[in-house]
Amino acid sequence: MRIGFIGLGSMGAAIAANLIESGHDVHVFNRSPARAESLREKGASVASTPGEAAQAADVVFTMVADDAALDAVTLGEMGIIGGLRRGGLHISMSTISVDAAQRHAAMHREAGVGFVSAPVFGRPDAAAARKLFIMAAGADEHLRVAVPLLEQLGQSVGIVGAEPSQANLVKLIGNFMLSVIIETLGEACAVAGKAGLDPMHLVELLTSANFNAPPYKIYGSLIASQRFQPAGFSLPLGQKDNRLMLAAAEALGVPLPLAGLVRDRFLTLRSQGVGADHDWSAVALCALSDAGLRKDRNI
Amino acid sequence: MRIGFIGLGSMGAAIAANLIESGHDVHVFNRSPARAESLREKGASVASTPGEAAQAADVVFTMVADDAALDAVTLGEMGIIGGLRRGGLHISMSTISVDAAQRHAAMHREAGVGFVSAPVFGRPDAAAARKLFIMAAGADEHLRVAVPLLEQLGQSVGIVGAEPSQANLVKLIGNFMLSVIIETLGEACAVAGKAGLDPMHLVELLTSANFNAPPYKIYGSLIASQRFQPAGFSLPLGQKDNRLMLAAAEALGVPLPLAGLVRDRFLTLRSQGVGADHDWSAVALCALSDAGLRKDRNI
Amino acid sequence: MRIGFIGLGSMGAAIAANLIESGHDVHVFNRSPARAESLREKGASVASTPGEAAQAADVVFTMVADDAALDAVTLGEMGIIGGLRRGGLHISMSTISVDAAQRHAAMHREAGVGFVSAPVFGRPDAAAARKLFIMAAGADEHLRVAVPLLEQLGQSVGIVGAEPSQANLVKLIGNFMLSVIIETLGEACAVAGKAGLDPMHLVELLTSANFNAPPYKIYGSLIASQRFQPAGFSLPLGQKDNRLMLAAAEALGVPLPLAGLVRDRFLTLRSQGVGADHDWSAVALCALSDAGLRKDRNI
Amino acid sequence: MRIGFIGLGSMGAAIAANLIESGHDVHVFNRSPARAESLREKGASVASTPGEAAQAADVVFTMVADDAALDAVTLGEMGIIGGLRRGGLHISMSTISVDAAQRHAAMHREAGVGFVSAPVFGRPDAAAARKLFIMAAGADEHLRVAVPLLEQLGQSVGIVGAEPSQANLVKLIGNFMLSVIIETLGEACAVAGKAGLDPMHLVELLTSANFNAPPYKIYGSLIASQRFQPAGFSLPLGQKDNRLMLAAAEALGVPLPLAGLVRDRFLTLRSQGVGADHDWSAVALCALSDAGLRKDRNI
Repeated sequence: MRIGFIGLGSMGAAIAANLIESGHDVHVFNRSPARAESLREKGASVASTPGEAAQAADVVFTMVADDAALDAVTLGEMGIIGGLRRGGLHISMSTISVDAAQRHAAMHREAGVGFVSAPVFGRPDAAAARKLFIMAAGADEHLRVAVPLLEQLGQSVGIVGAEPSQANLVKLIGNFMLSVIIETLGEACAVAGKAGLDPMHLVELLTSANFNAPPYKIYGSLIASQRFQPAGFSLPLGQKDNRLMLAAAEALGVPLPLAGLVRDRFLTLRSQGVGADHDWSAVALCALSDAGLRKDRNI
Repeated sequence: MRIGFIGLGSMGAAIAANLIESGHDVHVFNRSPARAESLREKGASVASTPGEAAQAADVVFTMVADDAALDAVTLGEMGIIGGLRRGGLHISMSTISVDAAQRHAAMHREAGVGFVSAPVFGRPDAAAARKLFIMAAGADEHLRVAVPLLEQLGQSVGIVGAEPSQANLVKLIGNFMLSVIIETLGEACAVAGKAGLDPMHLVELLTSANFNAPPYKIYGSLIASQRFQPAGFSLPLGQKDNRLMLAAAEALGVPLPLAGLVRDRFLTLRSQGVGADHDWSAVALCALSDAGLRKDRNI
Repeated sequence: MRIGFIGLGSMGAAIAANLIESGHDVHVFNRSPARAESLREKGASVASTPGEAAQAADVVFTMVADDAALDAVTLGEMGIIGGLRRGGLHISMSTISVDAAQRHAAMHREAGVGFVSAPVFGRPDAAAARKLFIMAAGADEHLRVAVPLLEQLGQSVGIVGAEPSQANLVKLIGNFMLSVIIETLGEACAVAGKAGLDPMHLVELLTSANFNAPPYKIYGSLIASQRFQPAGFSLPLGQKDNRLMLAAAEALGVPLPLAGLVRDRFLTLRSQGVGADHDWSAVALCALSDAGLRKDRNI
Repeated sequence: MRIGFIGLGSMGAAIAANLIESGHDVHVFNRSPARAESLREKGASVASTPGEAAQAADVVFTMVADDAALDAVTLGEMGIIGGLRRGGLHISMSTISVDAAQRHAAMHREAGVGFVSAPVFGRPDAAAARKLFIMAAGADEHLRVAVPLLEQLGQSVGIVGAEPSQANLVKLIGNFMLSVIIETLGEACAVAGKAGLDPMHLVELLTSANFNAPPYKIYGSLIASQRFQPAGFSLPLGQKDNRLMLAAAEALGVPLPLAGLVRDRFLTLRSQGVGADHDWSAVALCALSDAGLRKDRNI
C-alpha cells in the first residue's frame, strides 16, 4: 500500500520503520529533515512537504507533538488535506485534544477524505517491537482500511466507536490513569523507604502479585531507583496531556481531583528546575521529596 | 501437619477448607461457633477456645478482622500464646497495623513461639481457588516452616524480609494502591459517562490494553455498572485499612495526599448513608456523584 | 470632569451613579440599552457606542464581565481607543486576566492613551455605599488623574505598582483568598452542624473574635443559613476568576492546591445542577453535602 | 478571689500575672518549678502539687499543653479534683480534644466540682495585653462565676453553650481556620513572588482592604518575610491541633479536605527537617518551596 507518514520523533520513526519492513511504499515527512535520513536508508521516500507525502497515498499517518503540530501538517496549501486524494484516509496517532479531534473530523469530512483517530499506549521500545496498544475510532468504512494496518503496528487494536475524538478521550483517560500510577508509586516508595524497606524490593513484591500490569513494572523500577533520564516520555509531554485531560473534563463538567494533584506536581517540578529531559515519571520525585528522600537535590 | 485455624470469616473459612483438603489435621475456632459447622463437616475439629485450637498444633493460623480481634485470640489464658507449644509457630494472615505486628512479634519472641506475618491479596473467591498473593515476613527458621504451607494456599508467596511487620506494611501499601485504583476508575468512568462513552466499554478497552492487572478488571466492572453489593471487601474494612496506612505513614513522617483523598471519600459515603453492606469500591460513587452520574441516590 | 462609563451591570451602575452624584458629566454605554435608562434619569447622557461615550471625555471607566467584553468595548472602530482623545485615560475596573491587562496596557500605550487597572473588592451594596476597596496600578502620570477619582468611589485605594496588570493579579489573588474563605466556612459549618452546634452561632462567635474581617461575616451568614440566592456575585463569575487565577499561576509555575480544590467544587455544583443564579458562596454546599447536611437537594 | 493556676508556659504565665495584677490571691503550680519563680516575685504563692494549688481555691485555671498534661494535673491523689473543695470550679483554658473535654466534664460532675472549658485565641503578647478572644462553655451556674473572671483576661468572651466540649470544638475549628489562612497566604505570596510583586506589599494591600482581620496581618507579615523564628505558636502544637480537628471531624463523619492538605504540610516540614522551634506559620514554606521561592533551604 502507498503510505504517507508525517512526524518522525522517536515514536513515529519506529512506527514508520515497521511499515516499511512490512512491505509498504512509505513516503515520509518531518519538519526537521535530518530525522528522515535513517528512514530513507531503510527504503522510504522523503517528501519535502506533508502534502507531497500525502500525494497519491492511500493512507497518511501522522504522529506529531500536539494540536498545533497537527494543524500545521494538515491544513494549508502544503498540508495533508490539500495533498490527499478524495477518498484517501488520514490516520492520526498523535495524542491531541478532544476538541482538535472533533475539529479535524469535521474538516476532513468536508474535504471528502477519511479521518481515523488511533492514539497509542506504549513507549518507543514498544513501538519498535510492534507491541503498542492502539485505540481506534472512526466511521466503519474508514476503520475497515485502518484496522488491518494498525494491527501490523501493535499487539492489540481496540475499537472505541464511530466518533474519532472518542479514541482521543480514551487515550487521555489512559494517560491520566498512568499519571496516577506514577504518583501512587511515588507515595508507596516514600513509605517503604522511610520504613527501611528497599523500594525496589517493594515494587518487585507488588508487581509479582496483583499489580502485574506493565505500567507498575516500568514506572516502579524507574521510581524505586530514582532514575528519570533519559526520558521515554518527557515531562512536558506528560504535562500537556494532563492539561488536555483537565480541559476535556472541565468541558464535560467533571471534577478530577487526582488529575489536579498531578497538575500541581508538574508545576512544582518545573519551579524546582527539573528539566524537560526527564521522563514524566519524575512526577514521583515530589512525593519522595516531601518525605525527605530525594536523592539528587541538584536535578 | 497438625494445624490450628482461628477466624472463619469468608476469607478464613475458604483458607481453612483448603488446608483440610490438602490433608492437614485442622482444629478451628471462631468467635461465633455457627460458622465452624461447615468446616466440621469438611473434617475439622472444632475447639472451644483459641488456646485449645493451638494445643498440640505445629502451626496456628489467624485470619481475623483487626488489631483488637488479634489481641483477643492471641493473649490471655485461653489465647494462642497460652496454648501453643514452645517452638510452635503462629502465622498471622490478618490485615493489622504495623504497630500491632511489631508488638506481637515481640510478645511471641518472649514466649518462645514463632511469629510470621502473612497477609494476603485477593478476595474470597481467590482464597477458595488458592489464587491468593501472599506476602510473608519473619525469621528464616519460621519462614522455612510457613512458606511451604502458604504455597498451598495461593499462587505466589513473596518474601518481604525478616521483620514480620514489614509484610503488614506491604499489605497496607497494596491496599492503599488498590484504593487509588478505585478512585481512578471512578473519575475515569465519570469522564466517559459524561462524554457519552459507555463506562463498561472504556473498562474493557483499557483492561485489554496496558491496564491488564486484576484490580482494574474486577473493580472496573463493578464501578462501570455501579454494582456495589454484595461486598467482596466491605466499606468499613477498607476504611480501617486506609486509617492504618495513614497512621503508619504519619509515624514515618510521610504525607500521602492520595490516601488523604480516599479518606475523605469514605467519610462522605458514611455521611450520605452508604452502608457497611457495600463493597469498598463504592468509594468510586463520590467521583460519579460529583459528576452528576450517580444512578441510585437512595443507597 | 467629563467621564465615559461603559458597563452598567449591578456593579457598574452603582459606581456610575456615584460619579454623577459627585457632579461629573457622565456619558454611559451599555450593550443592552435598557440598563442605561435609570442612569439617564439620574442625569447621565446615553451614548450609542463605547467610542461615543469616550469622545471628548477626560477619563473612561469600564466595568465589564470578562476579557472578551473588554476587548469588545475597547477595540475596533466604535471602541474606546478609537474614541478617546490623545492623552485621555482609560480606567479598567473589571476583573480580567493578567494576560489581557498586559495586552491592553501595550495597546493603549501605542495609541497614546493612558491605561490604569483599578479592580475592586466589594459587592454591589458596597459599590453603592462608596465602600469599595480599590487596587490601582499604572504609570505615575495616570495614577495622578485616576486616584482622586477612585477615592470618590471607595473607602480605600491601594497603589499596587506601575504595571497595570499587577492590580489585576492582586484582585485575582484576593478573589482566590475569598474563595478559600468560602470553602473554609463550608467545612467549619459542616463540623459544627454535625456536632449539634448551630452554624450561625459558630459564625457569630468567630467573627466576634479574631475572624472579624468582612468576608467571614458576609459569607459566614450566607453559608450558615444555606441562603445562596439572590447572587451578590454569581457562581459563573466566581468560576471564571478561579480559572483566571489558575491560569496566571500556571504561567508563573506556581501550584495552588487550594485553588484546585475550589475548581473542583465549581464543577461539582454545575454537574449537580446548581444554577448561575446562585451566589458563588454556594461553593460551600459541597462540604455541607459531603457531610450529609445539605438542606435543599433540589437546588 | 482565691485562685489556683496550673501551667506556666508563655500563655499561662502571662494570664496568671494578669490575675495577680487584678488583685486575686493566686496559687500557682508548674511541672518545672523554675518557671514559677517570676510569678512568686509578682506575688503568687507557689504550690508543690496541682492539688495543693487547688486547695481552698474558689476557682482553678489550667493552661497546659495537651490532653495528657490535663489528665496529669487533674486526676490522681495530687490532682485538682482531689484538692478542690466541693462546689469549686475548674476553668480549663487549654486546647484539648473534644473527647477529653467530654471526659473531664463527666468526671468533674461526678466529683461535685464545676468544669468550664474556656480556650483562647491569641498569642502570648495578646495574653499579656488582656487582648485574648475567649470561648466559654459550661453550665449556667459555672459560667456565672467564670465569665467575670475571663472578662478580666481578654477583649471578649463568647458564650458557646452549656456543654464544655463545644468550646473546645469551636477552638479547634478556629485553629483549623487559622491554618488555612496560613496556607492561603503561602500560596498567595508564592504567586506574588513569582510575578515580581513584593509579597510584603501584597500583604499590606490586602490587609488594608477587606482582609483586615488580625490573622492576615500577623501571619501575612511572617510569611512574606519568611521569618518563622522565634515561635509564637510552635509547629508541633499546630500539628497537634490539626490532628485533634481531623479526629473530631472523623468521629462526626465530616471530610475536611482543607485540614487534610495542612496535615500533609506538617508531615512534609518534619521530613524536611524544619524543627519544633519554628512557628506553625512555617506551614507556608511548603507552598513557597513548591514554587521555588524558599529562601533558606538549610532550615
